[in-house]
Amino acid sequence: MNERNSYVTTAIEPSPSLFFDTITGFERTEALKAAIDLGLFTAIGEGHDTAEEIAVKCKASERGIRILCDYLVVNGFLHKSSGQYTLTPDSAMFLDSRSPAYLGGAADFLLAPMMAGAYKDIAGAVRKGGTLMSEEGTVTPEHPLWVKYAQAMTPMIALPAQMMANLVDPTPGLNLKVLDIAAGSGLYGIAFAQRNPSAEIFAVDWPQVLEIAAENARKAGIDNRHHRIPGSAFEVDFGSGYHLALITNFLHHFDLTACERLLKKVHAILADGGRCVTLDLIPDEDRITPPDAASFSLAMLVSTPHGDAYTYLELDRMLHNAGFSRNELRSLSPGGQRIIISHK
Amino acid sequence: MNERNSYVTTAIEPSPSLFFDTITGFERTEALKAAIDLGLFTAIGEGHDTAEEIAVKCKASERGIRILCDYLVVNGFLHKSSGQYTLTPDSAMFLDSRSPAYLGGAADFLLAPMMAGAYKDIAGAVRKGGTLMSEEGTVTPEHPLWVKYAQAMTPMIALPAQMMANLVDPTPGLNLKVLDIAAGSGLYGIAFAQRNPSAEIFAVDWPQVLEIAAENARKAGIDNRHHRIPGSAFEVDFGSGYHLALITNFLHHFDLTACERLLKKVHAILADGGRCVTLDLIPDEDRITPPDAASFSLAMLVSTPHGDAYTYLELDRMLHNAGFSRNELRSLSPGGQRIIISHK
Repeated sequence: MNERNSYVTTAIEPSPSLFFDTITGFERTEALKAAIDLGLFTAIGEGHDTAEEIAVKCKASERGIRILCDYLVVNGFLHKSSGQYTLTPDSAMFLDSRSPAYLGGAADFLLAPMMAGAYKDIAGAVRKGGTLMSEEGTVTPEHPLWVKYAQAMTPMIALPAQMMANLVDPTPGLNLKVLDIAAGSGLYGIAFAQRNPSAEIFAVDWPQVLEIAAENARKAGIDNRHHRIPGSAFEVDFGSGYHLALITNFLHHFDLTACERLLKKVHAILADGGRCVTLDLIPDEDRITPPDAASFSLAMLVSTPHGDAYTYLELDRMLHNAGFSRNELRSLSPGGQRIIISHK
Repeated sequence: MNERNSYVTTAIEPSPSLFFDTITGFERTEALKAAIDLGLFTAIGEGHDTAEEIAVKCKASERGIRILCDYLVVNGFLHKSSGQYTLTPDSAMFLDSRSPAYLGGAADFLLAPMMAGAYKDIAGAVRKGGTLMSEEGTVTPEHPLWVKYAQAMTPMIALPAQMMANLVDPTPGLNLKVLDIAAGSGLYGIAFAQRNPSAEIFAVDWPQVLEIAAENARKAGIDNRHHRIPGSAFEVDFGSGYHLALITNFLHHFDLTACERLLKKVHAILADGGRCVTLDLIPDEDRITPPDAASFSLAMLVSTPHGDAYTYLELDRMLHNAGFSRNELRSLSPGGQRIIISHK
């Protein structure tokens, strides 16, 4: 009875915890960044496990290392027992630079001054209704951010790329001419080429970004079937006769009119029976679920003039207006990435 | 069986969630700050509940307000239903500027450039083993940060101050001469004066900080029993014959030697049978629990030359070395603030 009462009291009494947790969020960001920059996770992964040993390895003070390590234990990135630190399974997988799934590059991208800087005056962006960065924000032609993005996100994209290829090309072997719009790392197109030996990939992005996609195609051993179309997706000549067009993490940067213009162009270059696959962070119609997709709108507000995380109904309407006859919404992962398969 | 399997898989598969959650923590900090600066919570508290109405009230774009509000719903600060936003009980209590418990000032303090700036190069502070700010960091004499602190933290201190006074002076009425070291808002000393009509409070802090304490004493109606001792606690003359000395949130700024020096000085000015009450964020001996106290060390690393969140054993030793005969550790709140009552 007492326990029940105390539970009820706790549940209904207002608490400042969420406020303090959120207002100090930048401290945890900075601490994690510091640990990555110091090579702290890699040092511990290698077996250096006391503050003294880690300090030697990371060329830092023992006092500083002890305090940072304890902070990382409190925040779930390390374990501590009898003064010895060890990596959690997550940290071993994603934060030890020797792991193939290492995410240090993603930290560089997300905290790059041009990206993080967009968040410095959210109030200003809310007043204006769009980015306060240069006129076009991150959608400025050949913005160097996208080279960083293509490099940083590679470890995150391999799995969804494979899942998309399996879903969209379930019986590989038939001829498949694929247009990979805003290719970035190139991995989405490359996954189709790896699965289907008849697939030819035509990747569209800024020239310097395509260097990275081409390098990934070479590593995957499919560079003889990987072709570059450098330039703006809105302006370059795509060619024609495509069986498949991929539009991955791209539409959210633009307003409805620009999206429809691009989708019409895509519709026109597809062969009869061709399909367009749109991958995006697609929130539910309430715009507050699922969390990752719903909160992504803010990133577009602060970094682009008119971008948004579009709901399925909005995308369905755009695709319909562009001429597609039928759209299917599919979940790519429990994490919330979704694709729309549109039929010409 | 299937559910069990899927649970096990989820539990053991490494996930990048914590990494992404933490590396984007600064975005949530900035969004909350923006909402406070725009007066968004107050506007909703007043009954403006659609993006359109809130935008008019906050002088912002409807699109920006819609995106920010949805983001705040995702992060637990607002509710949304049929396009209408309402405050959560926590937001109504702490983020509506019309509430007496409003925490907007705490946001100002925690995000003030001089405080937040200390976190900009944590890796550097870890290498050095102390703050990279000016030589003495936030413990520079008359640092203007402490005026802001005294103003900002008032709503947070009223309750623990009252709890401390109840605990330490259970049978008020006897003469009580109280030295309130690093008084800040003055509320700890003031709580004793409010409880005990015979209490006289002598508050020590920088002159400009004492202005705020004096103002709070006036508001509490005890200014005739509230006296100022402006200057450094290490250097000013405290007087003598005190029954009680309060050292609240202060020792963590200094190294062991400086702490002992101050505690000896305090021991000397106490009357026979006098007590010293140290309030601090006191982590357990493992230094990783409770979370708030354990993670506080990092704040001291980046903002002071030698400060730390000391454990009870460390404080017990300092107090013993300073001459105190006996120390009692008491919990002030479930939140983790603790006090040590030391007997002369």
